[in-house]
Amino acid sequence: MTGTVYLVGAGPGAADLLTLRAARLLGQADLILHDALVSDEVLALGIRARKLNVGKRANRPSTDQSFINRLLVRAAHRGKVVVRLKGGDPMLFGRAQEELDALNAAGIPVEIVPGISAGFAAAAEIAQSLTQRRLSRSVVFVTPAVARGDKTDDGWVDAAAAADTAVVYMGKAEAARVRDALIARGLPAGRPAVLVESASRGGPVAGGTLGALADIAAQAGEGPALLLIGEIFAEAAARHAFDANRDVTVRRA
Amino acid sequence: MTGTVYLVGAGPGAADLLTLRAARLLGQADLILHDALVSDEVLALGIRARKLNVGKRANRPSTDQSFINRLLVRAAHRGKVVVRLKGGDPMLFGRAQEELDALNAAGIPVEIVPGISAGFAAAAEIAQSLTQRRLSRSVVFVTPAVARGDKTDDGWVDAAAAADTAVVYMGKAEAARVRDALIARGLPAGRPAVLVESASRGGPVAGGTLGALADIAAQAGEGPALLLIGEIFAEAAARHAFDANRDVTVRRA
Repeated sequence: MTGTVYLVGAGPGAADLLTLRAARLLGQADLILHDALVSDEVLALGIRARKLNVGKRANRPSTDQSFINRLLVRAAHRGKVVVRLKGGDPMLFGRAQEELDALNAAGIPVEIVPGISAGFAAAAEIAQSLTQRRLSRSVVFVTPAVARGDKTDDGWVDAAAAADTAVVYMGKAEAARVRDALIARGLPAGRPAVLVESASRGGPVAGGTLGALADIAAQAGEGPALLLIGEIFAEAAARHAFDANRDVTVRRA
Repeated sequence: MTGTVYLVGAGPGAADLLTLRAARLLGQADLILHDALVSDEVLALGIRARKLNVGKRANRPSTDQSFINRLLVRAAHRGKVVVRLKGGDPMLFGRAQEELDALNAAGIPVEIVPGISAGFAAAAEIAQSLTQRRLSRSVVFVTPAVARGDKTDDGWVDAAAAADTAVVYMGKAEAARVRDALIARGLPAGRPAVLVESASRGGPVAGGTLGALADIAAQAGEGPALLLIGEIFAEAAARHAFDANRDVTVRRA
């Protein structure tokens, strides 16, 4: 009998920000294929599962996507309960579609379990709503990061510039390029910006302006980080303002 | 001793899409102030709490925001554990900032617990990632709905037109206006569009094109609905295509 593959969002990191459904499925899983960003506390819920890290590791190439697809199909054909565990939500910057297509082509049943994407954990952490009366009725999630086979156009810049609030994923290393592209597209250099690293796990937060985005990003460590840009972040940016003269990051209260 | 107010996301509806943290807090709460959209299954987790529906009900005005703020402050001053439970995520179209500002002004400790917003549950339900290589690197969440005191400009239209993928909240009743605005802004009438109603709770799904958005929206019932617009929805729109000649909605498989 063919097993089912559950494509599950692990949430932003804190183990108790997992959904009840995800926690239950982890406990039932025979095999868990997980991203590198999934925390040990979350993985510990997979009490009977074999666990395999198929994520990108520092200085090493990520596991080939077609290899992951083959592992998923093979385990399901052997009748296993398979959880494919992705950081955040599987449907946002998670390359879920390639796995879904491979599983569909192989006739494997798939269920998708949403998770809390880091942007929402970041908003909670800095206590600033992503939308707000008078200031924001549109929130865009974009990334400047380009993977093999991606769209390479600059449409993400237009989208980020047009929305009231922009949440930039995987933008830390390219903060100077994000800054230049958005300012070239007409955003004011003084627009508030906040970096939140390892949202929900007590990582550093640093605030300032779009014009200082590269300096803000330089405050970050090795964890996954988001760049939040918009007028609504004025108060949060001031509260977490980093002092460029000190070599420290202002942490959340 | 002053109590704490927890601003908690109830997720999209299915009780097991609540986070572990939210479930724990509901069990500890003395008082739960909840939106109308929060499901009975979720509310049942508040085993010792007094529960008060402060949401908008059909044909009745919503509870005045300043009244909700006063209730939150008063209960916290009495030392109660208060959960303010909002559908989806509190920081996206949840008017959280007004409550946060009131609680901060009163010196009440607040913690925010993110939840799964309906857009992610909708993507899971139709098994279509919101981002996808070659097709989408930007996702915008917008609403055409204007509450008292909102921005009334058409910036949301620019944002929705600029992003590869648009998720329109509270747009069902204004589908004709959304369609006209986006087509006027240059989007092709043939761009795929899908309506997902009561995501995660088995509501109807109807697919078609942007040009047919009003007809698609007319397939919906009384539940909260999202409009998903973007090239990535081509396959999902076809799979859930509604036949205008039949007076039925194609449900998910």
